[in-house]
This record gives sequence, C-alpha cells and structure tokens, in this order.
Amino acid sequence: MVDSYVRFFDTTLRDGEQSPGATMTSAEKLEVARSLARLGVDVIEAGFPAASPDDLEAVRRIAIEVGNPPHKGDNSPADGSRVPIICGLARTITNDIERAWEGVQSASRPRIHTFLATSEIHMQYKLKMTRQQVLDKVREMVTLARSLCEDVEFSPEDAGRSDPAFLYQVLEEAIRCGATTLNIPDTVGYTTPEEFGALIAGIIHNTPGIENCIVSVHCHNDLGLATANTLAGIQAGARQVEVTVNGIGERAGNTALEEVVMALYTRHATFNCSTGIDTTQITRVSKLVSNYSGISVQANKAIVGANAFSHEAGIHQDGMLKHQLTYEIMRPETVGAKQTRLVMGKHSGRHALKQRMLELGYRIEEDDLVRLFERFKLLADKKKGITDADLEALVSDELYQPKEYFKLDGLQVACGTMGMPTATVRLFGPDNQAHVHASVGTGPVDAAYKAVDAIIQAPNDLLEFVIHAVTEGIDAIGEVTVRIESSAAGQVIGAQSEVDQLRTFGGYGADTDIIVASVKAYLSALNKLLAATGQYETAGAAAAH
Amino acid sequence: MVDSYVRFFDTTLRDGEQSPGATMTSAEKLEVARSLARLGVDVIEAGFPAASPDDLEAVRRIAIEVGNPPHKGDNSPADGSRVPIICGLARTITNDIERAWEGVQSASRPRIHTFLATSEIHMQYKLKMTRQQVLDKVREMVTLARSLCEDVEFSPEDAGRSDPAFLYQVLEEAIRCGATTLNIPDTVGYTTPEEFGALIAGIIHNTPGIENCIVSVHCHNDLGLATANTLAGIQAGARQVEVTVNGIGERAGNTALEEVVMALYTRHATFNCSTGIDTTQITRVSKLVSNYSGISVQANKAIVGANAFSHEAGIHQDGMLKHQLTYEIMRPETVGAKQTRLVMGKHSGRHALKQRMLELGYRIEEDDLVRLFERFKLLADKKKGITDADLEALVSDELYQPKEYFKLDGLQVACGTMGMPTATVRLFGPDNQAHVHASVGTGPVDAAYKAVDAIIQAPNDLLEFVIHAVTEGIDAIGEVTVRIESSAAGQVIGAQSEVDQLRTFGGYGADTDIIVASVKAYLSALNKLLAATGQYETAGAAAAH
Repeated sequence: MVDSYVRFFDTTLRDGEQSPGATMTSAEKLEVARSLARLGVDVIEAGFPAASPDDLEAVRRIAIEVGNPPHKGDNSPADGSRVPIICGLARTITNDIERAWEGVQSASRPRIHTFLATSEIHMQYKLKMTRQQVLDKVREMVTLARSLCEDVEFSPEDAGRSDPAFLYQVLEEAIRCGATTLNIPDTVGYTTPEEFGALIAGIIHNTPGIENCIVSVHCHNDLGLATANTLAGIQAGARQVEVTVNGIGERAGNTALEEVVMALYTRHATFNCSTGIDTTQITRVSKLVSNYSGISVQANKAIVGANAFSHEAGIHQDGMLKHQLTYEIMRPETVGAKQTRLVMGKHSGRHALKQRMLELGYRIEEDDLVRLFERFKLLADKKKGITDADLEALVSDELYQPKEYFKLDGLQVACGTMGMPTATVRLFGPDNQAHVHASVGTGPVDAAYKAVDAIIQAPNDLLEFVIHAVTEGIDAIGEVTVRIESSAAGQVIGAQSEVDQLRTFGGYGADTDIIVASVKAYLSALNKLLAATGQYETAGAAAAH
Repeated sequence: MVDSYVRFFDTTLRDGEQSPGATMTSAEKLEVARSLARLGVDVIEAGFPAASPDDLEAVRRIAIEVGNPPHKGDNSPADGSRVPIICGLARTITNDIERAWEGVQSASRPRIHTFLATSEIHMQYKLKMTRQQVLDKVREMVTLARSLCEDVEFSPEDAGRSDPAFLYQVLEEAIRCGATTLNIPDTVGYTTPEEFGALIAGIIHNTPGIENCIVSVHCHNDLGLATANTLAGIQAGARQVEVTVNGIGERAGNTALEEVVMALYTRHATFNCSTGIDTTQITRVSKLVSNYSGISVQANKAIVGANAFSHEAGIHQDGMLKHQLTYEIMRPETVGAKQTRLVMGKHSGRHALKQRMLELGYRIEEDDLVRLFERFKLLADKKKGITDADLEALVSDELYQPKEYFKLDGLQVACGTMGMPTATVRLFGPDNQAHVHASVGTGPVDAAYKAVDAIIQAPNDLLEFVIHAVTEGIDAIGEVTVRIESSAAGQVIGAQSEVDQLRTFGGYGADTDIIVASVKAYLSALNKLLAATGQYETAGAAAAH
C-alpha cells in the first residue's frame, strides 16, 4: 500500500513558460520560484537548461537562492518554508543532461528529469529509432543522469499511445538504471479519466521494481479533462502530480495546480490524501504568474477566477448564513482570496512599505526599496488608498523589468473623437542620447507604438494587447500586457514537443495612465527582443540608428 | 438500450447570463440565440421569465424569431438550421410557470423547465418543507406545467446530496405528472466523475417510468471537473447535457459546451455518441458570447482559447507534416478557428459588406446596414485591411447597444508622462441638449469617466475594466468591456441559487481609439443602469441634471 502524501511537482517555469509569449525574465522566474516555495510545492521544475544560456542561468540562480536553506538572520517570510527539490529538464542527450546538472547541482536537493518517447508513432516518425534503440538510449542516459545526481526522474513521452508491454519494459530499464520517479505524461491531452486511471494502474501492477519508486502523472487540458485525469491517476496510485499555476502551458495548457489541490482538500474523505500545500497562498501565486506570464485568468476560472466566489456578496448582504451550507463547498479565505482592501496611504513611510512588502512575501533589497518608495509616493499623490494589488503591480513594473536598452523618458498624447490621435515619444537609448519622435495613428496607442518603432526599428508583429484595471475603480493602476513575435530573434525548441516556434516576447507595464502603461509594456517586450537578437550588445554605445 | 444521440441544452442565456455583470440586452440575447441555432443546439434555455418583464420579453422575442421555421424567401444562413426547442425556467410556483409559458408559447417547440430541491439540507434550511410537502409541490406544479405545455423538464436541485430513495420517489412522481426530461444538477460542483456517473446510473436503474424519458445532466465547474462529470453522465446513460458557451455561469461557471462537443467528437470510438452540433461554428459563437457577456476567454482555455492551437505555427513553418500525427488530436478548422484574415478594404461597397455579414451569419436590416456601412468606411480610411473580427466588433458596437439615454457626442483627451491627464466630454442627453464637462484624473480614462459622472450623476462602482485589441496589430479596433455595480438599481434573484445580488451591468465599446472605446463602454453600462432605475423614464425630457 502506498503512502497517502501527494507530491506537487510544479512546472510553471518550464512547461508553463513554453506558452507562446509567456517568456519571463530571470528576476521574474526567481520571484515565481520563491512564491512556489512559500506555497509549499515539493519540486520546482525550474527550466530546460540546454535550451539557451539564459535558461541555464535562470535555473542556476533558482537552485542557489530557492533550493537552499536560508542564511541565519534572514527573516523574510519565504524562509520558513521547506526547501523544495529543484529540477532541470533534459532530453536523453548527453549535453542536455550535463547542462541540467550544471543548472541544479547547487541546490541542496537537485533532480534531473529526462524523457524519451515510447509510442510507435513517435519512435517511427519523430525519433526514427527501433524499440531496441530506445531501450539502449534509456539505459545509457538514465545511467549517466544517476551518475551525476541521486534523484532522477524519467518520462516515457506519449505513454498513453504506447504498447503497454513495451512501456513496462522501458520503465523497468529506467528503474534498474537508477530512476526514482517515473512520470507518465498524457502528451496530447487525449485520454479520459477512466483510460488514464487504467494506464497508471496497469503500470503499477506490471512494472518490476516500481514499488520502490514514485509514480507521477503529467496531463494536458486539450479536452478540458486534465484535472479529472490527474485525480484518476492519484486514485490509481500515483503520488506525484505535475501541474502549473493557472494551468498555463502549451496549447490548452497543463493541469491547474489550484484545481487539484482544492479537489484533494475539499473532497478529502474521498481521496484521503495529504499535501504540503498552504492553500492560503494560492490566490497570490496565481496573480503573480498571471502578471509575469502575461496570461490573464478568465473570470469564471475554477478557484482563482474573479467570479469563483462571487455568490459571496449576496450572502453577506442579507445575512442568510444558512446559505453557506447550501451553496458553498469552500471558503474564499482558504485560497487567500480575501485581500486587505485599503492598506496604505500618502502618509505611510518607507519602513511601513518595506514591512507590507515583507508581509506580501517580497524580499526587497535596499536599492530597490528606494526606487519603489518613489513610485509609491507618486501613486499615493494621485490615488486615495493604495491596495495590496496596487503594490504588487508596482513591484512587477519597477523591479522585474528586462535589461533596458531603451527607456521611456517622456510621452505626450492627444486623442479623442476629432480623429487625429497623435503621440510624441522621447526614449533614452543605449547610446545615452534622448530620441524624440511624433506620429499619428489610428488611436493613441497605435500612434505611440509607431513613434517607438520609428526610433527603435525592430520589426515585429503585435500578437496580443490587453489592459486590465488592477482593482476596483479606474483610478487604480492599469496593467498592460503585450505579446510580440519576431522572426529576427530566431526560433526556439519546445522541450517536450520539440516543435520549432517563432520567438515571442511578452511585455508588462503598469501606470495610472493606460497609454503610458501601454508604451512601457511595449518597450519591455522590445527590450526582451533586443536582448535576444543581441543587436545592441555588439553595437555597444553606438547611436540608436 | 438508449439511443446514441446526445441533445445539447444550452443555458448560456439563463445560467450563463447570471454571471456577475454578464447581463445582455434583448438584442444581444436574440443574436446569441440565432448563433446557437446555427451551431445546432437542440434546446435553448432563453431565460427566467418570472425574474423581470425584461427577461420575459427577451424570451418571447427569441421564441418568436428563433423558435420558428423561417419565412419563405428569407435566405439568411441561419435559416438552414433545424428549429431548436425554446425553454423557459420556472421555480415550482404558479406565477413562475405561467410566466415561463407566456414566454415560450409562441415557439413551434416550447418547453417549461421547473425545479425544486430534494436534499435534506435544502429542504430543511432553504425551503422549510417536509418530504411530503416537496412531493405534493412537484405533483401540483409539474401537472400545471404539463397542462400548458407538452414538453416539461424537471430538475431535483442538489440531487447529489439527496437521499437516493427519496430522489427516485420525487422523479417517479414528476414522470407520472408528465415530465419528459429529468435533469440532474450537481448544483455546487462537488462531485467526482465516478460519483456522478454512479448517481446517474442509480437513477436510471431505480426510477420507475424513466425508460420513456430523457435523462439530462447539469454540472458546475467549482473543482474543474464539470466536463469530466458530464461525460461520466453520458457514459451512464444521460442523453441531454446542459452547457454554456465558454463555460460561463455563476461562480466558476457551468460545463463548457465546446469541451463536451469536442470530447465526443475527438473520442468518438470511446463514447460512440452523435450530436447535432456543427463544430465549425464553435469559435464564432465563443467570440460572440465573449463580446456580449464581457467575460473574456483565457488564452489557454481548451478548444476556444487563443493558444489552443498555438503549436500550429511551428508545424507549418518547417513543413514537418509528420508532427500532425504525433502532436495533434484535432484540427483548428474543425472548430472554425481559421478565420479569413483580410476580407475587405476601403474600396468594398455596401453590397459586399451585406454579403460578408450574411456569410458571417448576421441578418442586417437595411437601416442598420446604412449605419454600419458609415462606420465601415470610417474604419477603412484608418486601417489598411478589415478582418472578419473587425466587422464583428463593429456590429456589436453599432447594432446591439441598449437604449441610449446619453450618447457620446465628442471627446478630447490630453495625457502622457507630464502628469495631468485631462478629458473633455460632450454628451447628448435625454433632454436633447449637449452637456460638456472637463475633468482631470489619474489617467485619461479616469479623467473621462469623471467628466461623464459629473454630467450623468448615477453613482456606481467600477468592478472590472478590460481592453482587448481585436486582432493582430494595434491599428485594429480596440474592444473595451466594463462592469459596474449600483445599489440604486436594486437587487436580483439568482434563479437556481435564489441568492440576492447587487445588480451589475456590463458595457461594451469598440473604436480604434481605446479612450473613445472606454467612454462608449462606460456609457453603454450606464445606459443599462439608467434603464433599470428608470430615472429618465419618469423625468421624460427633463434636464439631465
């Protein structure tokens, strides 16, 4: 009989970050990893180190800063939590496995995760390998991984469409070579809960040696069944679940962490499983990932959507407490959805700001605090009360921006129904010069973007443009997320899918003036694009153009 | 053995419209109903006629215009489809049932849907009724409904937490009194697929007379399991599914129509069920409902999210057709996700516009066409190519607005980093006068909204504010949706939950200038609020303030 503890393996920073445009900066990834540690996940898959030097570096920083016990005297709230395992993904290729080890080795509990497809269709068309070649490759590469790292996870890709007898044989080989976790992915999101539960039960029943390993499940949501399939896996004996915050990921995404956590919590009598998750952190982590990935959450999304607890209003209003029993299966407080509304005002000092940020889980360095406090005072002059959500938007905007080749120095806009929206933009460039350009456009944002394009000249397509008011009232900060695509930045390999994609870059900006926020978001995406093409790295302090 | 045809009962216009702020105008509801008919749903639950005279009127119009075969000579594409059943919801109250009948009776195939809770917790705390009283009420009210209408659906609310023996007894009574469809709701979204399948199987096995009825399932998504529960219901023998487009609805929403359709389609060999749905209409209906309800769809939402088919790009790029087999379980074309990119330009004439609108499924009256064509020409002057999405945004903005007490007559905005965003607004009021006001704000939208508030003086709280660029490129039309809440407009009863809520109003605006679109959206929501309070109805042509 297996134990009842279900391990949460979060792959927001690997499979989630592969969503088009969800690219995060290293600083953003580190902040997400810290918040995942606070949330209490057992394993953080921090990235795919072989993908690029940037990815390797991000994994390395997370391994060092989140994968180790805190230093003495450091009293940030993050440090009370257990230290999570830090994991790096690798194809069954020597270089991938060595890079993954390079990334995670500084963590106190490192893991290497390697994978190879076992279905006929993948072996024949994608890998062009025979069964024997696949078995040999698994033996060789799991052995290599285990020689570097004590904790090795192996995934047979497209397990659902593999011949069961061959699948058991591959898994047995991986176990024999030292794999300690065996992860079963439903790669294309095709199975039903019944089928997926049977697949897991069959593997547990038929694979020699599996009783000493943890069986893991990794589902995709193409048919809206990821959560149900994951729960079916748990009922069949899986004790690790691979999930992402808000269910982000390629195509329709991965299993949503918050749904599996709350199903296990709400239906404890049915599943009888425990987890290490602090449910009250869920809403905060959801918001953080939504900001940094630029993928906003639908109002009716289970658990973390804006409306998920919307019947609350009516209940409190008429005081019919009886309704709590009749219509509620969980309390918003349980997932941390009740935020303090009004926390600070124009008379709050720098110490109060630092204290509040600590309570919110942000460890702000002294230099950053100075900049943040300046922005805070500017905002407090404009807006009567500052909420936690406002503070979190300020942090995202102020502290987690990519390297700024071009910086917004001034913007002036005139628009309205008279029909000639005009924007004048002044950017401070890598040449240490101010560049000014005025443009007319179909609207104020179009005009401003045209002016930016005239200065920076980095051709791209705008894929998505969304503006949100952060909280109640339009006097709150507006948050803008954009996604741009550029052929100049080359292509990327999706890790588990190995499909080349044009590179897309997400940008984020926040300001009480949404046109200013829009320009900041565009610049943030463009700066990521410029970092990828490297055109201003080589040019040094040359003129912008 | 039951047949293999699964009926789709769409409740977007009833349970979906109960989402906070998803309130639609009658014209919007009619357009959604038309598109649902084109999609091929079997039953349209058009509303809850007893809720308000507006609701009754909307159901009546849908019954007449969508619930009947087309007139001769009318060649709009909508008319090729089967005529759906039009259904109205009613509590087990005489007045509710009579209003429901009043609403649906003009349809060629009308249905009354009535419900009563059967769980101990609901009977004791909410209804304060004994088992015998519940049985008597069901007998009385189903008999009444059947005396008016041949097609009667009955739902035992909170069936999942009811004593099975009592549940079977209630259902047997409903059947004896003439109910033809028995709908089993998982009211609080609490069950697992296994449990819900067993509940349906138990009902089918133990309820005398049920073999001559259709068993229906109605699931909620609080734990992310609505689709899996619905499919488990089908496997247990249910042959009607109650769903909403995009899964909208109270709290975390209802089962998403598109997920159940595509699971049955993609996994036909497993479920072996047929439907009347034309899958190629899914993306278009999803977009329409998203626009009118103001509830936007998450990028990684299954089937209809912007990223649902995002691996496409890479595939086409390198021409590796083999990947279609390895990573794809459905084609974007199947759900109509491949829109024609560039369809019209500045040289397109009025006939071409009308023709294209017909192809898109919009039946535009001659008067409306004149206004639409004006807007089209204005847009074509600003933007190089007009896409289908642009056209659909124009229709939403131009044709489906509420009664306009106040109309935007002029707007002038100055903003930027200099820090004094200023807006001057000119509104044309119900007194036939122009009202002008200038305000400064924290941003351009805040300034404009303050100016509007100074003129209209209808206190409200802004709950949500979102801007989307319609398609690629920021020179496309920007769409703004807002939700406001006001205590002045009174409270509403949620139908199936019977919880009072403060009234919220959604507004929609589209323009190439997002500040103009923002003001239009706010005016659209305010006009709905003014209609609800009736303050300008009584005041007649009195001065605006």
